[in-house]
Amino acid sequence: MDFSTKLKQHLARVEPALDALVPARTDAPAGPARIYDASRYSLQAGGKRIRPVLLLAAHELCASSDTATTAADPLPAAVALECVHTYSLVHDDLPCMDDDDLRRGRPTLHKQFDEATALLAGDALLTEAFALLARHYGDRPALAVKLLRVLADTASGDHLIGGQMQDLLGERKADATAAELEFIHLNKTAAMIEAALVMGGLTGDADEATLATLRAAGRHLGLAFQIVDDVLDATADAATLGKTPGKDAASGKTTYVSLHGLDTARGLAAEQTAKAGAALDALPGDTTFLRELFAAMLSRGN
Amino acid sequence: MDFSTKLKQHLARVEPALDALVPARTDAPAGPARIYDASRYSLQAGGKRIRPVLLLAAHELCASSDTATTAADPLPAAVALECVHTYSLVHDDLPCMDDDDLRRGRPTLHKQFDEATALLAGDALLTEAFALLARHYGDRPALAVKLLRVLADTASGDHLIGGQMQDLLGERKADATAAELEFIHLNKTAAMIEAALVMGGLTGDADEATLATLRAAGRHLGLAFQIVDDVLDATADAATLGKTPGKDAASGKTTYVSLHGLDTARGLAAEQTAKAGAALDALPGDTTFLRELFAAMLSRGN
Repeated sequence: MDFSTKLKQHLARVEPALDALVPARTDAPAGPARIYDASRYSLQAGGKRIRPVLLLAAHELCASSDTATTAADPLPAAVALECVHTYSLVHDDLPCMDDDDLRRGRPTLHKQFDEATALLAGDALLTEAFALLARHYGDRPALAVKLLRVLADTASGDHLIGGQMQDLLGERKADATAAELEFIHLNKTAAMIEAALVMGGLTGDADEATLATLRAAGRHLGLAFQIVDDVLDATADAATLGKTPGKDAASGKTTYVSLHGLDTARGLAAEQTAKAGAALDALPGDTTFLRELFAAMLSRGN
Repeated sequence: MDFSTKLKQHLARVEPALDALVPARTDAPAGPARIYDASRYSLQAGGKRIRPVLLLAAHELCASSDTATTAADPLPAAVALECVHTYSLVHDDLPCMDDDDLRRGRPTLHKQFDEATALLAGDALLTEAFALLARHYGDRPALAVKLLRVLADTASGDHLIGGQMQDLLGERKADATAAELEFIHLNKTAAMIEAALVMGGLTGDADEATLATLRAAGRHLGLAFQIVDDVLDATADAATLGKTPGKDAASGKTTYVSLHGLDTARGLAAEQTAKAGAALDALPGDTTFLRELFAAMLSRGN
């Protein structure tokens, strides 16, 4: 199966799962109904679904190995991860944070609803992620706890939230160092990409060595992903990007582009992508799709 | 042991556990260090610790029964619950929500730090709650999953967040009905009180019937607790209350006091407290401390 067909196949599983596992609550009282309505507005805004697709691809690679005897359904984990990603976007877009009006080509959640609803819907999406894991893997409690630990650790003050805080602190000074920038990107962005591959490995019954390999690949891939984000912010237009471009330069923010220039940044992204691919060499099984996905993430236009 | 000594004994376990299980990260990079600093500012602001104490008391009752053979340490669950409670206060105090400057007699988190830090610290506290359960009960995965399900369900868009959303919607109309008000209180407040008793039951190895009894008691107790909150908002001063009083009346918000008057509201709180106590009649073991705690919650001044 070629890359594009396989990608479509994964996406065709993700979208209905998002709809089914975080359903509308039109019959609920007004408060919950509005929370789920707002959560679904952002969750179903048609993002690239890179994290769920990475999770499904890592799952498939591991579950097809000879030693995987008890693979589990990867879809609830994929939805949980996308819930955390979406919550982080909703909160990041709020006026007290990045103050963005546009996301995925549509008004951000607080523009479409209001700030209080966006705050609460973000809280609900984060909570729902953990609820999904506890609920759907409840009959495999040891697996559930492993998934929950990975996701909670990834989303914690040490990683996702700590990286975002560091990013905000960095915006107040234009002279962040390369090491500080790498810390932000490793924790704000790469940690979630790592989590995608590791959680797919877990549902695919991967052994410890495979999980460590997936984590290493995810770290390189995540760095590459964020460098490409910096490049796109400096080069793409709003229609292509689906969000406001040029914000980094306008705010004087330190990025890979401001630190190293466009060409070097592009080179660093390619280098990290190559390292992610090289990490996969240690794995048995057919890694073709994952490698092609890594390449597509490097050459993406939004 | 008399009530006051026993209460002090529980509190003497809770406070160091909060400090130890959500530690300072002064050696961490600036972002995470600030997140944990802010989280601890709110977590250690000396609240009444009603939820952790209820959890410990329910645990003790159940763990001392003849059938409890595998009780677990209740402290991580107690800390996790207090993290969720504290996160909900931090987010509720934000300008786009209740816009409060004072909490537990000190500046609210966004006044002491800033809005972005308060938003992120709230997110981190919510995440940490789930991380604590997954980490500390990882060697008892079936128990961990049960605790995680209760906490995630309680904090979800159907309960804690949905109740808060309904509360905000209700503030836009001064004619909320008694049924709408009860929905808000059951989900915004009582759900967390219920969770305290149920999670204490779970760590105390309670059977299903006992868990159901604790849940029923928690529901009545939680309603009473919120009615007392409404009464105190209408009658207490800021110094006693530790937060701004009179906000409900000033905002024209529907409360038990505005709906029923002070005396009837006080009567309803006493009635719900009596029902909570009556529910405990079904349980074996010494329920004296829990009953006295229920009574103290009814007669509290803040």
